Amino acid sequence: MTSTNSNPDWLYRGIEEIFPNRPESDDPDENLQHRLERSGQSLRVKLGIDPTGTDLHLGHSIAVRKLRAFQDAGHTAVLIIGDFTAQIGDPTGKSEVRRQLTPAQVEENAQTYLDQLRPILDFDTPGRLEIRYNSEWLSQLDLGKTLQLLATMTVGQMLAKEGFSERYNKENPIYLHEFLYPLMQGYDSVAVKADVELGGTDQKFNIAVGRDLQRHFGLRPQFGLLVPILLGTDGAQKMSKSLGNYVGLWENAVTMYSKLEKTPDAIITDYFELLTNLSLESLPENPRERQKALALDVVTQYKGESAALEAQKAALSQGQAGTIPEFSLGEIKFPVKLFYLVSAAGLAKGSSEARRLIQGGGVKLDGEKLSDPNLMLEDGDRIDGKVLQVGKNKFVRLVKS
Amino acid sequence: MTSTNSNPDWLYRGIEEIFPNRPESDDPDENLQHRLERSGQSLRVKLGIDPTGTDLHLGHSIAVRKLRAFQDAGHTAVLIIGDFTAQIGDPTGKSEVRRQLTPAQVEENAQTYLDQLRPILDFDTPGRLEIRYNSEWLSQLDLGKTLQLLATMTVGQMLAKEGFSERYNKENPIYLHEFLYPLMQGYDSVAVKADVELGGTDQKFNIAVGRDLQRHFGLRPQFGLLVPILLGTDGAQKMSKSLGNYVGLWENAVTMYSKLEKTPDAIITDYFELLTNLSLESLPENPRERQKALALDVVTQYKGESAALEAQKAALSQGQAGTIPEFSLGEIKFPVKLFYLVSAAGLAKGSSEARRLIQGGGVKLDGEKLSDPNLMLEDGDRIDGKVLQVGKNKFVRLVKS
Repeated sequence: MTSTNSNPDWLYRGIEEIFPNRPESDDPDENLQHRLERSGQSLRVKLGIDPTGTDLHLGHSIAVRKLRAFQDAGHTAVLIIGDFTAQIGDPTGKSEVRRQLTPAQVEENAQTYLDQLRPILDFDTPGRLEIRYNSEWLSQLDLGKTLQLLATMTVGQMLAKEGFSERYNKENPIYLHEFLYPLMQGYDSVAVKADVELGGTDQKFNIAVGRDLQRHFGLRPQFGLLVPILLGTDGAQKMSKSLGNYVGLWENAVTMYSKLEKTPDAIITDYFELLTNLSLESLPENPRERQKALALDVVTQYKGESAALEAQKAALSQGQAGTIPEFSLGEIKFPVKLFYLVSAAGLAKGSSEARRLIQGGGVKLDGEKLSDPNLMLEDGDRIDGKVLQVGKNKFVRLVKS
Repeated sequence: MTSTNSNPDWLYRGIEEIFPNRPESDDPDENLQHRLERSGQSLRVKLGIDPTGTDLHLGHSIAVRKLRAFQDAGHTAVLIIGDFTAQIGDPTGKSEVRRQLTPAQVEENAQTYLDQLRPILDFDTPGRLEIRYNSEWLSQLDLGKTLQLLATMTVGQMLAKEGFSERYNKENPIYLHEFLYPLMQGYDSVAVKADVELGGTDQKFNIAVGRDLQRHFGLRPQFGLLVPILLGTDGAQKMSKSLGNYVGLWENAVTMYSKLEKTPDAIITDYFELLTNLSLESLPENPRERQKALALDVVTQYKGESAALEAQKAALSQGQAGTIPEFSLGEIKFPVKLFYLVSAAGLAKGSSEARRLIQGGGVKLDGEKLSDPNLMLEDGDRIDGKVLQVGKNKFVRLVKS
């Protein structure tokens, strides 16, 4: 009984829900802490990622950081790349988001994702990370086995799922194949014999389907561990690339730092809890210092300590508020060549220097090196809000109006 | 335009519905008669049978007789044996009817069916009959293709199907795999490139799904040809083995004859229309003669003319009404050996003669030869209502009470 006195902070920190969750129970199938302590063996902790895009932001990082916490506690992270559905796309052809990808595109997206996750996960300790592509088992499912999967659920149960029920009641069409997606995700849990599945709060239904299918196939059902949805840097809406309130994992240290350094006070404690391992009891009292501590810690995680400190210095040198100076694209006539933009933005003493700097590899746009001085920029929309950087200390943020 | 004046009796006789059906249209995709006349080539006419049982009765024969009519008009009958689903059974394990069958059981059932259909269909003319097992294509469907099939329909469309809508509204569970069955039947039409599908009126939805899938796969959609449900010999309920109001295709000539000879007047015209090719204008006026004409024609189709005439003679010799004498099983103590039953029923002058008759191959139960005198009959339920026959002229109907 001594075990129940221990308090695994790493497990509960920033968790929205664990299910099943009966803290009074001694049953390791109903009490995750018991399972962790008693099993004496490493659990298999599943997280699925959908290789449909290429860019991850801090909102995506929360579940991955929790996965890392399990790795550090001696468990195995099982990262599922959902290549099967990505290669099928949307069979109705109606969805732009779910367009069909080739195996090569999927592999490229997956690698880009993994590169961005590298700073968060432990890729090196043997036995701590398993990367699996779900086409391995889903492409083997024939019609007989698919019928078996479908037969585990009723139409009523499926229509009870949030999202489906709304659409059904509004008479918005639900295509039959959509009912298979939760079952496919659930079957992933069967295939990898997951003990725990991580996901956002919107994943509860699918994770519960995984439990049912594991039971159906004679396996011990997994626990669900739900993490919250991260608010964006505006403190108002869910972090999202399209809303512009994101901090991208692919962004350079200075951009990340300067965005995080402005985190609104209302959400900064959540950010500390979800994005760092810092103790919440010993945060700086001064709001400005709190923002700097957050920015420094997060940037250190992704870019290393020296890059983070440099970014902090650069931010300081760029004015009291630490903001990056803005350059208005209103003065530029598009299309325009890159060297002209670098020069016009005051980052070089004229076109010739701009060309030399670019060719020498010293010019980046949002951290991406651009080496062709004649690169044609078609319009201001695509570069709006991005940071144009020369060397280590010269920056402007391009803004359209 | 002369073609529209011709009236293919064989096509319209006993049909409940043809769809699509726009008699005013010249479009061979909307007017089956045009399609038949214009194509100048043989159409592919599909009928699916489910090899889950072994016994067929006259109710099953209607669609098969229509298939024969197409054969006689020069078209190809495509008989689909639904072996795929029979081998899967009911994935929920709840259905007794849909229990899982082995490939050997399916093959045996299919052969028994085909034997019973042999008198109705043209098995011999080259190119007129194609027998296909749907596992040929359904076992090849992987999850990707299954998702495509499912994506052609919405939940709302599926729930509109009679049967589903009732169950959904009554909150009786509908398992998700049930939604796949209409799509599998429809995909059969894709696989065999059916031009026409035959079925009972309860098949309209499934045949329409076949049309949609054929369109989806770039094929010309099939016509649906619906035949009515046959009433049983009681003139009240659908013909069914469990209701006892059936005439089985496997039954012997005398049993068939004696059942049909009592066809109630209210349904006899339907029987003539659906079960014979006789002209409805020249039927005997005398009701008794009508019954005899029906019985003679139908039995001739299945057992040949001489057997039918013999059965008529036997029926006449068995009394004015042509009924078979009954033997009450109430006098028998079960279990009982066959030879004792034959003797007790008065069909032999004692046990020794009964044994000899059985060993000599002269004893049949509902037309099936029984050659073991010591065959143990466990109880009266299994033989209730069956005809025990010795030689060509001695019969009793075994009745339980």
